Amino acid sequence: MTVSHNKSRPVRAVVYGVGEMGSIVTRLLVERGAEIVGAIARSETKVGRDLGEVAGLGQLLGVTIEDNPAAVLRRGADIAVVCVGSYLETMRPHFAACLENGVNVVTIEEETVFPWTTAPDHAKFLDLMAKANGVTLAASGAQDVFWLNLVTTLLGASHRIDQVIGHSVWNVDDYGPEVARHLHIGTTREEFEQHVADHGWPEFVARQTLEAMISRLGLSIGSINSTVTPLIVVEPVYCRALGFEVPPGALIGTVDRTEVASVEGPSFSFTMEGRIHRKGEVDSNTWQVFGEPDLVLSNDRVPTRFITCSTLVNRIVDVIEAPPGLVSLNMLGAPAFRPRLVLNAADETFSKST
Amino acid sequence: MTVSHNKSRPVRAVVYGVGEMGSIVTRLLVERGAEIVGAIARSETKVGRDLGEVAGLGQLLGVTIEDNPAAVLRRGADIAVVCVGSYLETMRPHFAACLENGVNVVTIEEETVFPWTTAPDHAKFLDLMAKANGVTLAASGAQDVFWLNLVTTLLGASHRIDQVIGHSVWNVDDYGPEVARHLHIGTTREEFEQHVADHGWPEFVARQTLEAMISRLGLSIGSINSTVTPLIVVEPVYCRALGFEVPPGALIGTVDRTEVASVEGPSFSFTMEGRIHRKGEVDSNTWQVFGEPDLVLSNDRVPTRFITCSTLVNRIVDVIEAPPGLVSLNMLGAPAFRPRLVLNAADETFSKST
Repeated sequence: MTVSHNKSRPVRAVVYGVGEMGSIVTRLLVERGAEIVGAIARSETKVGRDLGEVAGLGQLLGVTIEDNPAAVLRRGADIAVVCVGSYLETMRPHFAACLENGVNVVTIEEETVFPWTTAPDHAKFLDLMAKANGVTLAASGAQDVFWLNLVTTLLGASHRIDQVIGHSVWNVDDYGPEVARHLHIGTTREEFEQHVADHGWPEFVARQTLEAMISRLGLSIGSINSTVTPLIVVEPVYCRALGFEVPPGALIGTVDRTEVASVEGPSFSFTMEGRIHRKGEVDSNTWQVFGEPDLVLSNDRVPTRFITCSTLVNRIVDVIEAPPGLVSLNMLGAPAFRPRLVLNAADETFSKST
Repeated sequence: MTVSHNKSRPVRAVVYGVGEMGSIVTRLLVERGAEIVGAIARSETKVGRDLGEVAGLGQLLGVTIEDNPAAVLRRGADIAVVCVGSYLETMRPHFAACLENGVNVVTIEEETVFPWTTAPDHAKFLDLMAKANGVTLAASGAQDVFWLNLVTTLLGASHRIDQVIGHSVWNVDDYGPEVARHLHIGTTREEFEQHVADHGWPEFVARQTLEAMISRLGLSIGSINSTVTPLIVVEPVYCRALGFEVPPGALIGTVDRTEVASVEGPSFSFTMEGRIHRKGEVDSNTWQVFGEPDLVLSNDRVPTRFITCSTLVNRIVDVIEAPPGLVSLNMLGAPAFRPRLVLNAADETFSKST
């Protein structure tokens, strides 16, 4: 395609995954002026229907949801916005389909935030595939603004850092029955502890977030320790996602904590508390820095689910403009508000260099 | 000077101004490994004495404070850290002395944060002089992390911005008698209002901060309105900076507010409340974003005076590496923690391009 100098044109995007998050993303893409050139889903209840209808936009978009990724991705999109799963193990074939068709990827998949230690083989493979095809794979979401970049910006006021402690609270009921079941909502403490003893417990995004932060700060990792603790209620709490009341003595959530000691001295801790909110409870994000000086940052009433999508959409142009490869979150610059999803002539002729 | 490849060496800094802020900066420079190659002050009580003694470090630094800027600046410093005054009108000759001697400048002078509309002639002159000499002039301080970059990072989670409202509280008693007198602490409401009617009231850093933010967001300024309101006490409050008790009915501070409407729609407001803190009161920083979604950010117990200095010191390498010219705060990247003030071989051979 040829564009005249100084002209801009809309970003051409593929919506890859049309669940709850993909549906929000679809609306944001439309409202910011992106051109949606395709949509991909697996569910028989979605394939063949119009994306606008499935995403609940109240309007047809003229984009039919398809189940053949390669066919959609060969249409020359700038970027695929991928909202499918949470670990690189399951996401690798989806990312590979985009990359080998020359399409950049921005995703809410949490491991890609910093995959170099938890999934090094997948990360290296996808990094090479992205570079070979001159495109970029990167992740964004709540961790981008609230858990990484607000904190590293705050540390720009530090003279000496001894300890960084983060605590984020999110509402399990906002993420549907799959997430609620994953957290074992409604089981007893004994059942939960037996499950963890038998099957282990996957490290959550807290680890990737801290690893990205430590890498951004130029520090080296000395030790990493992750733990999970069940949150037990004393009074019954209704779980909207699962449609039943959690009785006293049962789980309404988990506290996932990762602690990292750096070789150079500063230590880091991030606690993610996912639980069913009771009336009046809200998502929050708090970071404390101990050192010279002590610093604190907090965000109340964080609409975690929505900002996961809006931050992702704000990153689209950054990812298109980034160097090729798997670009973990520590490697991207500061997030910014992007009111219009347009590329100018400079982007159009942009030749990514390794 | 020739350095071998991949070697690093300390930043060579000049301390320009050895008042309260310059003294804090001196300690931070020493603790981060900078090489202080000179110190400049005017006061007869300081000139000829050792910088370490005047700055209260409890150790001699072997650096004698001098009153001839040109002589000091010709010694080949990488950067002058300038803590002297608050407006470009008075600071222009100081900055010019650094720039024409090929020395980069980082300063807490507030107008340089975004000088293009309030002091356009001085800004243009200094921009040209910096470019002609291949060096950079930039400002940092509390506004860098807390009032600009934390906010623009937060906006990286916005889908639509309607209104951005900031409110920062700082303790007048932390800044000595000159600032307290400048704010007319202890006068009556009538005296204050008469003064403003007779002499006007200088726009404070709120305006430059909002202009930098709006420029960073790629928006255009529609209208600007700045107001000042006296803060009157009902119970007596002791003013440490002036050494007397402010009686009921008199001023303990001012509320400076700037409101900016952008041409594109979003509006911005920033209120700076400088007042004598009563027991238990602390500096704070709060920003609210109305739009989709609504967002909030707050920092409690901000040690405003100290972080003004520590943020400045963290910016030194950024300013040395920035393109030549007057680089207003919207043009600098995200602030970052810089544990060591060292330049590597790449910086050494760094040739700034216009």
